Amino acid sequence: MLTQTESQQRIVRLQEKLRHQGAHAALLILPIDVYYFAGTRQNAVLWIPADGLPMLLVRKSLSRAREECPIADIRPFPSSKEFASVFSEEYASVGMTFDAVPIQQHSYYTRALPGRSFVDISMIVRDIRSVKSTFELELLRESASKLASVFAGVPQFLKAGMRELDVSAEMEYRLRKAGHEGYVRMRAFNQELFFGLAVSSGGVNGGFFDGPVTGKGLSSASPHGASYDCIQVNQPVLLDFAGVFHGYIADMTRMFVIGTLDPELQHAFDVALNIQEMVRQAMKPGVIGEELFLAAALLAEKAGLGSCFMGMPGEQAKFVGHGVGLELDELPVLAKGFTAPLQLNQVIAVEPKFVIPGKGVIGIENTFVVSDEGGLRLSDLPDEIVFLEA
Amino acid sequence: MLTQTESQQRIVRLQEKLRHQGAHAALLILPIDVYYFAGTRQNAVLWIPADGLPMLLVRKSLSRAREECPIADIRPFPSSKEFASVFSEEYASVGMTFDAVPIQQHSYYTRALPGRSFVDISMIVRDIRSVKSTFELELLRESASKLASVFAGVPQFLKAGMRELDVSAEMEYRLRKAGHEGYVRMRAFNQELFFGLAVSSGGVNGGFFDGPVTGKGLSSASPHGASYDCIQVNQPVLLDFAGVFHGYIADMTRMFVIGTLDPELQHAFDVALNIQEMVRQAMKPGVIGEELFLAAALLAEKAGLGSCFMGMPGEQAKFVGHGVGLELDELPVLAKGFTAPLQLNQVIAVEPKFVIPGKGVIGIENTFVVSDEGGLRLSDLPDEIVFLEA
Repeated sequence: MLTQTESQQRIVRLQEKLRHQGAHAALLILPIDVYYFAGTRQNAVLWIPADGLPMLLVRKSLSRAREECPIADIRPFPSSKEFASVFSEEYASVGMTFDAVPIQQHSYYTRALPGRSFVDISMIVRDIRSVKSTFELELLRESASKLASVFAGVPQFLKAGMRELDVSAEMEYRLRKAGHEGYVRMRAFNQELFFGLAVSSGGVNGGFFDGPVTGKGLSSASPHGASYDCIQVNQPVLLDFAGVFHGYIADMTRMFVIGTLDPELQHAFDVALNIQEMVRQAMKPGVIGEELFLAAALLAEKAGLGSCFMGMPGEQAKFVGHGVGLELDELPVLAKGFTAPLQLNQVIAVEPKFVIPGKGVIGIENTFVVSDEGGLRLSDLPDEIVFLEA
Repeated sequence: MLTQTESQQRIVRLQEKLRHQGAHAALLILPIDVYYFAGTRQNAVLWIPADGLPMLLVRKSLSRAREECPIADIRPFPSSKEFASVFSEEYASVGMTFDAVPIQQHSYYTRALPGRSFVDISMIVRDIRSVKSTFELELLRESASKLASVFAGVPQFLKAGMRELDVSAEMEYRLRKAGHEGYVRMRAFNQELFFGLAVSSGGVNGGFFDGPVTGKGLSSASPHGASYDCIQVNQPVLLDFAGVFHGYIADMTRMFVIGTLDPELQHAFDVALNIQEMVRQAMKPGVIGEELFLAAALLAEKAGLGSCFMGMPGEQAKFVGHGVGLELDELPVLAKGFTAPLQLNQVIAVEPKFVIPGKGVIGIENTFVVSDEGGLRLSDLPDEIVFLEA
């Protein structure tokens, strides 16, 4: 439950940035943004003036929003005719998150608030959300710990001959029983994810997903994650799952092999560990995300694995890590074009991976907190490949 | 796999409607819209001129799009500088689905295609998609059949003392093993769903979801679906799950009771069956969706259950059925304000339900095809409440 103090601290940070950008208020309508500032993910809209008190307007459920939200001013959603009268006309410049708000919603609010100009505050909101509080870090550690426990149990069920789908179903079942909330939120427009990836040969496949591995999936309608392919001996099995508990996402990948591993894949895994360690040591405030990606790509290149780093040759992702929190694709991104310096207490999933055609997919992923001593791991599950008897 | 013939038929229907609305072309960017017309859910954009041949522009994965998509003209996504040169300037009025396209995406394409006007074609696309082909009906029947098989197995695992979460996890596990694709697509901006609902006492709870029942969920961040509440004897257990196979969604609700049921809840269930049958008989082409909702609400009212029909008193949903297909919330909606006549081969989940405070949630749901003989059921699983020994 979000406390009043924490809600106020978050709102104050937004207000400072609104004033800095010259916006008079924010109208937040994406549910997870509303949740971040107001502690409730009901169908509601959050109004935050740059100077003044916030107001939550609730479509459904008003009773539940009142139970959960520490903001004092909670009201039923006004009719479109009444809408403008709720807000003083002095708020002429209104911020919205243009990255996530559909055109129809934008049109609705421009009609409901005539004479105002609307400005994009996506990056402000995403930047604020990227820096985690002590409370959030505790929730993220809990998520990582629960996720790690399920990973630790994989040797109990993983067998040759299972379909990738069966492996995924076993992971999902155990995660759910541990309190996993299921739905994995992503912000990017054309991305979607179900739980994670359990892939072996099916992982050597192109895909829409903005990650190193997409998976074959079950059909062209859901071309992502586990497939009907069966797990073979001496083939790497990559499990990449998002743990979602109390809304907070930890992201983790581990490798499993029934039998023995091709030396080229073992080499690639060792390079992935080296890249992860290099990035971890460098994850300090002030460091540029893009530089970490370029350094990682250089290590891969020097190891002779440049063409299969972070994806199929020709479909390589141009990043090596991504922020996580209430969404899987938060800021910062360790990627080309991301030149903002890292900030203390940002949380980043680092996932150096290789897709080697004809051989398999392999890599590692852990979630780290940016600190003055470099990245702090959210969980202490060993990184090593788990070998099982054939 | 979408055939070339079927893809062409869908595109021709869109072209007719574009010409009728005076738009020169459609630029479809929502992945599931692209999938419907082009048979691939890669990261791609589909251009359909009102007169002329379609073109698929693919960001990732081009190789996979080429395997799946029957359209002849498939190209890599052009750079923003090259973008305008791909399209003739005669296409001055370009349709987009404003209901689902974020402002930033819209801005990108208005910059990439200067001098064009963009118009909203959401309702055109949703209307076309609401009428299912023979191929789609076959996939929907398969989804319903697989979903029904899992429902039929519930007596094997449902026990008093299980948490709602445990019941949900058992359903999800069995559905996944049967090939359920997991991710349930919804079009509405602020809605999200994970698999479905397994709720008993936790179902008597307000919520953001635009349905009769939301469920308590596991936290304020995921306030939807199963909770940690335990299943009690003599309490109704409502299982409402979406079956997603090859992208197509069938929707089904069944009731289970360990022990005996309160007579008021049994009465409400009987009324729900009556409403379902009334709606089913009336589901013929030309009938107005709104009138079916009003007739359903009247039956509930006459049975003395008006205040708890389709939701908690004070938070009642104003519908009794919704279209399903590639998304859970398709057209048509049997709801206030939906005055368009039903069309042959639309597919509608009809779900009369009651939420009775202090007692429980109860109701029924089946998915039907609109036909000249009234609604045709997608599956033949019995509707009756399943009573289990305490």
